[in-house]
Amino acid sequence: MSIKVIAFDADDTLWVNEPYFRRAEEAFYGLLNEYLQQHALERELLKTEIANLQLYGYGIKGFILSMIETAITVTNRTVNIEIIENILALGRQMLDEPVVLLEGVEDVLNALKGRYRLVVATKGDLLDQERKLRKSGLAHYFHHIEIMSEKDEANYRKLIRHLDIQPDELLMVGNSLKSDIMPVLNMGGWAIHVPYHITWAHEVIEDKIDNERFQSITNIREILGQL
Amino acid sequence: MSIKVIAFDADDTLWVNEPYFRRAEEAFYGLLNEYLQQHALERELLKTEIANLQLYGYGIKGFILSMIETAITVTNRTVNIEIIENILALGRQMLDEPVVLLEGVEDVLNALKGRYRLVVATKGDLLDQERKLRKSGLAHYFHHIEIMSEKDEANYRKLIRHLDIQPDELLMVGNSLKSDIMPVLNMGGWAIHVPYHITWAHEVIEDKIDNERFQSITNIREILGQL
Repeated sequence: MSIKVIAFDADDTLWVNEPYFRRAEEAFYGLLNEYLQQHALERELLKTEIANLQLYGYGIKGFILSMIETAITVTNRTVNIEIIENILALGRQMLDEPVVLLEGVEDVLNALKGRYRLVVATKGDLLDQERKLRKSGLAHYFHHIEIMSEKDEANYRKLIRHLDIQPDELLMVGNSLKSDIMPVLNMGGWAIHVPYHITWAHEVIEDKIDNERFQSITNIREILGQL
Repeated sequence: MSIKVIAFDADDTLWVNEPYFRRAEEAFYGLLNEYLQQHALERELLKTEIANLQLYGYGIKGFILSMIETAITVTNRTVNIEIIENILALGRQMLDEPVVLLEGVEDVLNALKGRYRLVVATKGDLLDQERKLRKSGLAHYFHHIEIMSEKDEANYRKLIRHLDIQPDELLMVGNSLKSDIMPVLNMGGWAIHVPYHITWAHEVIEDKIDNERFQSITNIREILGQL
C-alpha cells in the first residue's frame, strides 16, 4: 500500500451524530401527532428532505427548514405557530449537542498520527463541523477539515488534487458505503467501512463490494491491523 | 511584492449578492407590515441575525431561519402560517437567483490567470458558493474555493498554511474591510479593498487604514495597475 493521507468521515465515524437526528425526528413526530401518524410523517419528512437536498445541501439548518416545510404541508397550513417555534428550538438544541466520541477513535488517531497525514472529510456545514471538531478534542490530530458539498467521485478527485496526492495514496474511512466507500474505490483509492448501527435512509445502499482496496471492519481499532 | 496567491472574496466582489438580501428583507417587511413598522422590523431582524451568527453562521439558510424566528417573535406568536410559508419561498428564491458578475471581473481574472494562483475565499455555505461559482462561468480561473466559517485572522493563518505560503505571499481582494482587509493586513498579508455600493450593517467598520500593504480602489480593474 502506498497510502499517504487517511481521510476520516466525521459524523457516525468519529462521533455520534445520527441518533441526534433521530431524536429530533421523534420530537417532530410528537409535535404533529394530532395531525398525522408517525409513519406518514416519516415518509413526508424524508420526501421533503430529499427534494430539498439540491437546494439546501446536508446539515442541520437544511433539516430544520425541511421540518418546518413538512409541518406546514402535512397540516394543510393549519399548524399552530408554537409548533414552528418548537421546531426552531429542536434545531438549536441539535446545534448545541455534546460531541460523544465513538469507542476506539482516539487510540486509532494516536497510533496513526505522524505516520500519515490525517484529515477530516465530511459533508454538512463547515461551522457546525468545526464546532464539533473543537468540542471533540481531536483537532490536534488532523491537518485540516475538508468540507465537500456532496461526497461523489468528482469531489473526491478534487480532494486528492487539493491534497496533491494520487488516488491510491488516499485511504478513506467512514460509515457510509454510498458517500465514503463507493466513490473512493471507483476513483482508485482505498476504503475502509466501519458501519454504524443506524444509517439515514438516504445513505443506504445494497451493493456487495468486491474490491482488493476495500475492507469492512466492525470496530475502528481494526484499521491498525490493516495498515 | 512577493505575491504568489491572490484570494478573491466572492459575494459583492466577484458578483452581486447583497442586493438579493436587501430585496428579501424588503419582501419580509412587506409581509409583516400590518404588525410592525419597517424600521422596528429592521432592528429586530438584525438583532436576531447577529444573535444567531454563532449558531447558524453566514449564508442564506441561517438568514431564512432568522427571518422565521423574527416573524414569530415580533408578532408575539400571532403570525399567520402563510407568512412563514412565504419566508421559506423567499429563501428558495434567493438560493436560485442568477449570478451577475461585477463589471471588470472577468477581464481581471483573464489578465491574472497563469501569473498567480487564484482562489476564492469566502464565508457562507459551500454548496451555495459552489453553485454560484458554477453559474458564474468563472470556475476555470480558480484553483479552488476556500470556505471559512469566519474571516478572522486565525482562519486566514489556517488558509495560508493550507496554501503552503507565507503571509506576505497572499493578496486578498474584497469588499469588506472587516472580513477581507483588516485580518489579512494584521497577519502580514497584502489587501486590496474594492468597496461595493451597499454593505451589510454587521460588516461596516469606521477605521482609517494606513498600511503600506493596503490599497483601496474603486473598480476591480485597477488591481492590474497595483501588481
